[in-house]
Amino acid sequence: LDCTVAQIKKLIGKYPVLWIDAVGLKEESVIRELGELLKLHPLSLEDMSNIPQRPKIEGYPNHLFAVAHTTTYKKSLAISQVSFFAGEGFVVSWRERTNDCFDFLRKRLEVKGGTTRSSGEDYLLYALMDAVIDTYFPALESFGDKLDDLDDRVEAGHSGDIVKDIHATRHEIRLLRRIVWPLRDAVDGLMRKHDWLIGEEAIIHFRDCHDHVVQVLDALESYRDACSDVRDHYATAVSNRMNETMRFLTIISTIFIPLGFLAGLYGMNFNPEASKLNMPELNWPWGYPIALGLMGTIALGQVYYFWRRGWLGGNGEKPKNASPQQMKPPNK
Amino acid sequence: LDCTVAQIKKLIGKYPVLWIDAVGLKEESVIRELGELLKLHPLSLEDMSNIPQRPKIEGYPNHLFAVAHTTTYKKSLAISQVSFFAGEGFVVSWRERTNDCFDFLRKRLEVKGGTTRSSGEDYLLYALMDAVIDTYFPALESFGDKLDDLDDRVEAGHSGDIVKDIHATRHEIRLLRRIVWPLRDAVDGLMRKHDWLIGEEAIIHFRDCHDHVVQVLDALESYRDACSDVRDHYATAVSNRMNETMRFLTIISTIFIPLGFLAGLYGMNFNPEASKLNMPELNWPWGYPIALGLMGTIALGQVYYFWRRGWLGGNGEKPKNASPQQMKPPNK
Amino acid sequence: LDCTVAQIKKLIGKYPVLWIDAVGLKEESVIRELGELLKLHPLSLEDMSNIPQRPKIEGYPNHLFAVAHTTTYKKSLAISQVSFFAGEGFVVSWRERTNDCFDFLRKRLEVKGGTTRSSGEDYLLYALMDAVIDTYFPALESFGDKLDDLDDRVEAGHSGDIVKDIHATRHEIRLLRRIVWPLRDAVDGLMRKHDWLIGEEAIIHFRDCHDHVVQVLDALESYRDACSDVRDHYATAVSNRMNETMRFLTIISTIFIPLGFLAGLYGMNFNPEASKLNMPELNWPWGYPIALGLMGTIALGQVYYFWRRGWLGGNGEKPKNASPQQMKPPNK
Amino acid sequence: LDCTVAQIKKLIGKYPVLWIDAVGLKEESVIRELGELLKLHPLSLEDMSNIPQRPKIEGYPNHLFAVAHTTTYKKSLAISQVSFFAGEGFVVSWRERTNDCFDFLRKRLEVKGGTTRSSGEDYLLYALMDAVIDTYFPALESFGDKLDDLDDRVEAGHSGDIVKDIHATRHEIRLLRRIVWPLRDAVDGLMRKHDWLIGEEAIIHFRDCHDHVVQVLDALESYRDACSDVRDHYATAVSNRMNETMRFLTIISTIFIPLGFLAGLYGMNFNPEASKLNMPELNWPWGYPIALGLMGTIALGQVYYFWRRGWLGGNGEKPKNASPQQMKPPNK
Amino acid sequence: LDCTVAQIKKLIGKYPVLWIDAVGLKEESVIRELGELLKLHPLSLEDMSNIPQRPKIEGYPNHLFAVAHTTTYKKSLAISQVSFFAGEGFVVSWRERTNDCFDFLRKRLEVKGGTTRSSGEDYLLYALMDAVIDTYFPALESFGDKLDDLDDRVEAGHSGDIVKDIHATRHEIRLLRRIVWPLRDAVDGLMRKHDWLIGEEAIIHFRDCHDHVVQVLDALESYRDACSDVRDHYATAVSNRMNETMRFLTIISTIFIPLGFLAGLYGMNFNPEASKLNMPELNWPWGYPIALGLMGTIALGQVYYFWRRGWLGGNGEKPKNASPQQMKPPNK
Repeated sequence: LDCTVAQIKKLIGKYPVLWIDAVGLKEESVIRELGELLKLHPLSLEDMSNIPQRPKIEGYPNHLFAVAHTTTYKKSLAISQVSFFAGEGFVVSWRERTNDCFDFLRKRLEVKGGTTRSSGEDYLLYALMDAVIDTYFPALESFGDKLDDLDDRVEAGHSGDIVKDIHATRHEIRLLRRIVWPLRDAVDGLMRKHDWLIGEEAIIHFRDCHDHVVQVLDALESYRDACSDVRDHYATAVSNRMNETMRFLTIISTIFIPLGFLAGLYGMNFNPEASKLNMPELNWPWGYPIALGLMGTIALGQVYYFWRRGWLGGNGEKPKNASPQQMKPPNK
Repeated sequence: LDCTVAQIKKLIGKYPVLWIDAVGLKEESVIRELGELLKLHPLSLEDMSNIPQRPKIEGYPNHLFAVAHTTTYKKSLAISQVSFFAGEGFVVSWRERTNDCFDFLRKRLEVKGGTTRSSGEDYLLYALMDAVIDTYFPALESFGDKLDDLDDRVEAGHSGDIVKDIHATRHEIRLLRRIVWPLRDAVDGLMRKHDWLIGEEAIIHFRDCHDHVVQVLDALESYRDACSDVRDHYATAVSNRMNETMRFLTIISTIFIPLGFLAGLYGMNFNPEASKLNMPELNWPWGYPIALGLMGTIALGQVYYFWRRGWLGGNGEKPKNASPQQMKPPNK
Repeated sequence: LDCTVAQIKKLIGKYPVLWIDAVGLKEESVIRELGELLKLHPLSLEDMSNIPQRPKIEGYPNHLFAVAHTTTYKKSLAISQVSFFAGEGFVVSWRERTNDCFDFLRKRLEVKGGTTRSSGEDYLLYALMDAVIDTYFPALESFGDKLDDLDDRVEAGHSGDIVKDIHATRHEIRLLRRIVWPLRDAVDGLMRKHDWLIGEEAIIHFRDCHDHVVQVLDALESYRDACSDVRDHYATAVSNRMNETMRFLTIISTIFIPLGFLAGLYGMNFNPEASKLNMPELNWPWGYPIALGLMGTIALGQVYYFWRRGWLGGNGEKPKNASPQQMKPPNK
Repeated sequence: LDCTVAQIKKLIGKYPVLWIDAVGLKEESVIRELGELLKLHPLSLEDMSNIPQRPKIEGYPNHLFAVAHTTTYKKSLAISQVSFFAGEGFVVSWRERTNDCFDFLRKRLEVKGGTTRSSGEDYLLYALMDAVIDTYFPALESFGDKLDDLDDRVEAGHSGDIVKDIHATRHEIRLLRRIVWPLRDAVDGLMRKHDWLIGEEAIIHFRDCHDHVVQVLDALESYRDACSDVRDHYATAVSNRMNETMRFLTIISTIFIPLGFLAGLYGMNFNPEASKLNMPELNWPWGYPIALGLMGTIALGQVYYFWRRGWLGGNGEKPKNASPQQMKPPNK
Repeated sequence: LDCTVAQIKKLIGKYPVLWIDAVGLKEESVIRELGELLKLHPLSLEDMSNIPQRPKIEGYPNHLFAVAHTTTYKKSLAISQVSFFAGEGFVVSWRERTNDCFDFLRKRLEVKGGTTRSSGEDYLLYALMDAVIDTYFPALESFGDKLDDLDDRVEAGHSGDIVKDIHATRHEIRLLRRIVWPLRDAVDGLMRKHDWLIGEEAIIHFRDCHDHVVQVLDALESYRDACSDVRDHYATAVSNRMNETMRFLTIISTIFIPLGFLAGLYGMNFNPEASKLNMPELNWPWGYPIALGLMGTIALGQVYYFWRRGWLGGNGEKPKNASPQQMKPPNK
């Protein structure tokens, strides 16, 4: 299928439907020549060359013109444009870049006597469009995988680049949505307008095509929601971890700061010899054990208080305390 | 009703309406044979086999084709697809998996002379669709229960897996919504298009069907809102608990840190003998009691300050302080 | 108006329009008998009995069938269903529970020669519907009161059950919205379809009815927004109070921790006799006053720093400092 | 123009179009008499009297009935209702309260031979409606001013009543939106329905009117967004200030707490005479300078650490440190 | 093209289509004269003069009137209005301010024999509209650049004016959206209404125009989402940094506060000579080393605890600890 415009000229008329599959948008002369040969409207040729275009299906006096996008997903989403011209006796597909999205269709066409081969321009256009739409499903799958992975990472407490990754995924979902959403309207419009090129039977096929597009949109919509969920999940995890940090600080600080004060108290240098009122405790025989006991009592009292409020359960130190009755909210 | 395609062939024509209830999508030959026997469109058969499909009702030249989903709810939402083919003299329902959603209908059919039995294909199709829609209500109920349970757990101060459970519920609500939403459009379309198969009386019945679907959607919408409410509630609870922790830390720290400083002050080793200016307090007869009194005054002052700002009320220590006048905002 | 079906049978035909006002849905035999007498469609009778139904107005061959809901508001929103059947010469209203929503209408009817009495079925139906819609306004009022009350409580710094109360109010707004929203569509549909029962003059009346419903929806919409505002207000209040707590902790801590360090420094026991480098300050005649002065300077420096940043203003201690120039943002 | 109904009766027919401008809704008898004189529909009179009504334009057999609202903005938004009745040879405008919104129009009418004077009822109605719509623009302007002012206050770090003021502004925007939104639909409906009263030329004028309403709605929409922006801005400012407070606390605490520990360490009273292992540092000739040096090293190390993380830059103390290379995120 | 109205008068009729390109709205007499000459509707002239107007395309009896806006982007978005009048034999474009948006078109027109020159009023109008729409793309590009820049700054940890810049960008996106959104409706309306002035061929061109507008709107929509993403990103970054600060404070505080307490404990002045129970440790030969060892053990124990919880990893001090197994969430 590597041939010049002149060769194509000879082929026209030989077959009931001619499929011309062109790749690359740089050779303007070829575009112009082919456009003249098949009487394609200049505006449609311009739209084909100016990338990126919104997906659309437009009727011109002589032919139908459709723009769609194929996607490939290797690490990130790559989008490349395909334009279709379908007229009496020919269908032209013009791809921005080489990719394998039509390989499966070509194989089916090479089988002699198959339905695909014997059908008209409308069926071929449908088959090509469907092949384009089929390239969206791997991208959808990879979105699903990514979101599951993100959810697992949030769950596992990683914090590194989660926000960045969530945004990247959201961005790609949005990107795909932007090329699928107008395609739905385009296919819908095609089915309603009853263009002369599209036969009654082909409408049923395009309805199938429309179904696939809507399915892709549904999935995108739900991935978008899932994205928000992951983000919420992450925000809650961050806030919970902060809470936990605070609680740990509070427990340690509130236990030791009063004890430290007590220790400081008995480190004061008031002269016991100046009067009997000046720190007589220092000379008591049981002074030190009593002081230690006092400290221990305060510490234990606070631990008990924290334990009753269920603050210790979250620290993983005393998991046996995490029984329901300690989880009761304190202000009840 | 366990029979081969050949047996079905014989049955056609014997009864005004034949209901064929098939289960399982793996035996392709059976699907093909039955499709040929009843002249079902290949695209509709393909849609039936390729799971999952969006719910839809499509008119083909010979028959109506409908896709819907039954749900069962045991711990989590399980969705399985049912396809319907309704043509002159027959209704085929083809389920992905065995379930009991048509059992009730079968019983009604077995009753001789009932309305269900004597009606046409349209009424049978309605009855089957209605049976499918009825499977959504138990799922709705379980959503309601789950949300009530989540609300109770947030209320009770549990924190474990609430976020995860909320997301799981949201996910299931979304899942169910995705199969009910297009069904509404499908039923709505059926009522408007006035297909030849659907009689005037059946339209009234499908209107009933449409009502049920809309009711399910209404409930889903309101569960979705309730989900957001639970999440907000949880976020507020987390933030309130953090606030409380902070306040506790602040109270203890700000009381004891100044006291600790005072204690440290009188623990300094300046030599009182070097001059009279060096810590004469240490040798005062009342030095120690005065220092203690000073500390007590500071502590009480702060406690009074906290009490006036209503910070103590939230700690559950002095609930009698939680009277309205202390609740006055401090910056007023 | 307490009578049996047999009595009703006799009354038919005697009056141009007969209003039958039934209450309670349990006596199935009565429902069936009346249905047969007035030739009501079985599906409409079923819809009447199966509670809850979505509000709707449906045309059946013999009669109009309408479902609406009356509300009463005593502490919380109570909804009860009313069904209407309007046909040639009769209007049936069938309430789920006894309430006083038709009392006002009955009084107007008892006045001989009033417009209400001499009009047709359509006017009576309008009057009944309008009486139902009028029951929504007290609920609206109570929503407004509740929201004002919540706003005041947030303002006053209460924290108790505000979130819970906001959610309860949101829930009730949603509940009411769910029964009013479809009613709007129903009334709208009735006005457009030009049913044979509804005369030209009655359409103008139903337009009035429609206006009322839309007004209720408008109010609900704005209460819903107000709900979100109260929630935001509360969240900001919580976050502000936390900020304030933190600031208080920071002020006290950062003043006294350095002072405490200084006190600790001169509490060290290095032996001044071992060398002249070891804490000669302890033996300086002015050692203690200098140390105190140093501490005072540090404390005052910090207080000045906080005062310049406007942190003290928020504590209510020195309101005179809250002048605009101190409010300048620190990072400017 | 201060006259009784009887006087009006005489005026009818004298002029091609009579403009009756009434104010106040309390004198029911006047309303009734005028209604009878001009054959106004009772429902429209009722709608005029029952305040508040939604804006609308309704066609009655004899006349057009329109409800709109004028606004005045002095500190807060005041809304008052105006009703219009336009029929063959007369236009009645009935205001709830006196205001000056028609003064400009009256002046134009008093100019003999102007276009306004010689046109029909439809043009007069348009001119009145346009005068009403013109009252919205000052309100819009004041919203813009308020939002700018709020933004400045957030910027300047004020915290007082910002949330309250934002909510108040949002509330007023919502209020205005509620009276303008239905007005758009009403005017739109009027243009489409081609009422007998509205001539071809007047439609072009009402299109202008419609344009103005849409412009008001556009502005409201964008103010609503701006409101959300101010709120976000405020929330970020609060959160940034909290961050800053925390950082200040952290810096001071983490510098002085370890130092305080060291000071405490050498304040311990272990008896150096009991063994050589007991605090020999105390008797070292260089003990004190070494301890001070150690403290200084720790403090400087921490300051360096904070400086490298860019924490000091935010405090305004060392702005020269805020160079880009210190701003590098720590976890990179 | 700098000429008076009188000169224009002479030119009319000489050429099949006359393009009058006027700039500036202040000379009212010129506007009035030209309006009379070309029979332009007064309302359209008024709309042209009153700035700002919403974009629109309106049909008047004699001519089409269109309002659009050109944008220039130098640091910030500048919008200026262009009005078009297209009638039999003439197209008037009237700009608010001088700008170069029509320069490209003028050059194409000067080329003799080009398509642009020989086409009718409709094509010229299309070419002018398209030139206006082309001015939006540089603005879009600069939005994209700004958002990328903001994202980089958030990533790099800058905090200065990010919120302000995000809001400024959002504001400009909104501004542009407000002038493009109605333009889409206007162009769409033009294509549907099939005005007498617009030929079949021109419709195809306006469809192209419509495509461009929709493309701009799509891009704006996605920039708006990107704006929200940047804001979320920033909020998360702020919250993460706060978390980190808190964690640092917690680590330092909880390590040194207990140690400080221990040091204070042995700084107490209980008299060992009063009894054997009073601080015998002070006289133990190994007292000091044991105390130091105890402190070291506590410190190491806490460091190990923090290390196990993965708190140290985030500080960049011990990156080798950030292995997955330490990242396990503590409450599992």
